[in-house]
Amino acid sequence: MTASLSRAVIAVDWGTSSFRAYLLDPQGGIVDRRESHGGILRVRGGDFAAALLVEIEDWLKQQPDALVIMSGMIGSRQGWREVPYVLCPATPDELAEGLERVDWGEGEAWIVPGLLDESRPGQPDVMRGEETQVLGAQGALPKGGGLVCLPGTHSKWVRVEGGAIQGFATYMTGEVYDLLQGHSILSRLMTKGAVAVDRWFLEGVMLGQAGGLLNRLFSARSRALTGDLPEDEVRSYLSGLLIGDELAAAVPDEAVEVHLIGAPALSALYEAALQKLGHSVVQLDGDAVAAGLFDLARRREASQ
Amino acid sequence: MTASLSRAVIAVDWGTSSFRAYLLDPQGGIVDRRESHGGILRVRGGDFAAALLVEIEDWLKQQPDALVIMSGMIGSRQGWREVPYVLCPATPDELAEGLERVDWGEGEAWIVPGLLDESRPGQPDVMRGEETQVLGAQGALPKGGGLVCLPGTHSKWVRVEGGAIQGFATYMTGEVYDLLQGHSILSRLMTKGAVAVDRWFLEGVMLGQAGGLLNRLFSARSRALTGDLPEDEVRSYLSGLLIGDELAAAVPDEAVEVHLIGAPALSALYEAALQKLGHSVVQLDGDAVAAGLFDLARRREASQ
Repeated sequence: MTASLSRAVIAVDWGTSSFRAYLLDPQGGIVDRRESHGGILRVRGGDFAAALLVEIEDWLKQQPDALVIMSGMIGSRQGWREVPYVLCPATPDELAEGLERVDWGEGEAWIVPGLLDESRPGQPDVMRGEETQVLGAQGALPKGGGLVCLPGTHSKWVRVEGGAIQGFATYMTGEVYDLLQGHSILSRLMTKGAVAVDRWFLEGVMLGQAGGLLNRLFSARSRALTGDLPEDEVRSYLSGLLIGDELAAAVPDEAVEVHLIGAPALSALYEAALQKLGHSVVQLDGDAVAAGLFDLARRREASQ
Repeated sequence: MTASLSRAVIAVDWGTSSFRAYLLDPQGGIVDRRESHGGILRVRGGDFAAALLVEIEDWLKQQPDALVIMSGMIGSRQGWREVPYVLCPATPDELAEGLERVDWGEGEAWIVPGLLDESRPGQPDVMRGEETQVLGAQGALPKGGGLVCLPGTHSKWVRVEGGAIQGFATYMTGEVYDLLQGHSILSRLMTKGAVAVDRWFLEGVMLGQAGGLLNRLFSARSRALTGDLPEDEVRSYLSGLLIGDELAAAVPDEAVEVHLIGAPALSALYEAALQKLGHSVVQLDGDAVAAGLFDLARRREASQ
């Protein structure tokens, strides 16, 4: 397989609520980039072809033969085309073999499959998009393996070994935080602002290690009521409790190295929590998805 | 202390979203009862005296010297008067000593204090209303002791020993279920209807024993997506996962007897889950709050 392609690549990470795209040269270098809130739920009448053209028309004029490759929820039932999941363990070649082409009258465009992990009985897990980020970050993993965490609305913990994704687990941490902040009895207690990496956040992380999350959550209320927890700190404490509960289940007891891929502010929270628990952290490139999409495009072209 | 009072009692359980009242004869027998959605959050301009009069005016005409006694969130900062918490362990006499009188121009009216448990460092817990229900059910506990569960939006687990409430813990189980059902990514997967005590509910309960709730919750989505979990069963499975996580933290590993006080449909879920885990269950009287309020009124009168 050659290191470069015969043409430019337009790499698209198209999720539920956001759209992110990169124009890449034939060697995978980032020429241009853009982001919008045009996630798949915002696309009117499901006309994804029209929505994509609006986003990247100027790039296509510059590079009419560019290969378009997309990952994320765009390949789900609610997206452009439902691309079947590839089963774990999954190699990069197996992911590339699962690519499906969409016709849109504008040249070649492909959608990356998601992954399905069925290794835990009664606990199948699914992802769409994160597999491509992990693939793009793989060069940074020691001996092509490691534990990768992608924090977010639905945090993903991915085990990579021998260059293949062995399995993964999803945690609804970010979504449960948003629900509690927006709609629960705790909402009225919470002031606005970012979560801080401070004493209250770390205390939440430690309390979260002991389980009983549904009880711990109530302590955000009782500690605020009894004057123990300052109102400005409820959100940091609550975030710590939730991330702490996630880490108690996702990370082994012995010290490990965790590779983080995510938005800087959220990754900083996970880094602080993991370090507090004695683990070491490596922050990986936030543009890993571009590298992953380029890698899949290369594999696609090489197989033709 | 005599078993009866010199006059009738109007016993009021006034919570955040509901109002429940009993007219009791001087021996504590239930003469009449009523319920409304007039919880404290519905009371306009905080005029609780006017709201109470609307609810019980006819009873006061029949029994002008009736003693009014109220428990629940009516005694909170958002209620009629903030009555200080009594510290655990708390005897019935200590609860009675904490009663505070409100002036409302219509005869004698008292509010029951809530309870504060500070026995677990960094995890203070509070209740308002459930202490009165437990007090009213105490006669049904063997040797004045036992483990009492009051399932609900915020489930309470109360340890009673030697006739005193030793301590308790709150679980936000019902509220988290409502949030997930109403506002989460799972909402769209969930059909309407009641939670069923069936195979999926019980499977959720068992999976909930292993911890990692934030990951288990996502399995409601992944199992529905992969066709394993029927859409009509998502709510029962989800309810099982949440109740299972609560029970894993609230109930000891060895078999115990749990005394349940609650609405019949919800109590039936807890009973099935507890039995599945090998525990025995005694359902207590749902009108326990009336007996508890009568008991506190007697103690109040006896101490004067």
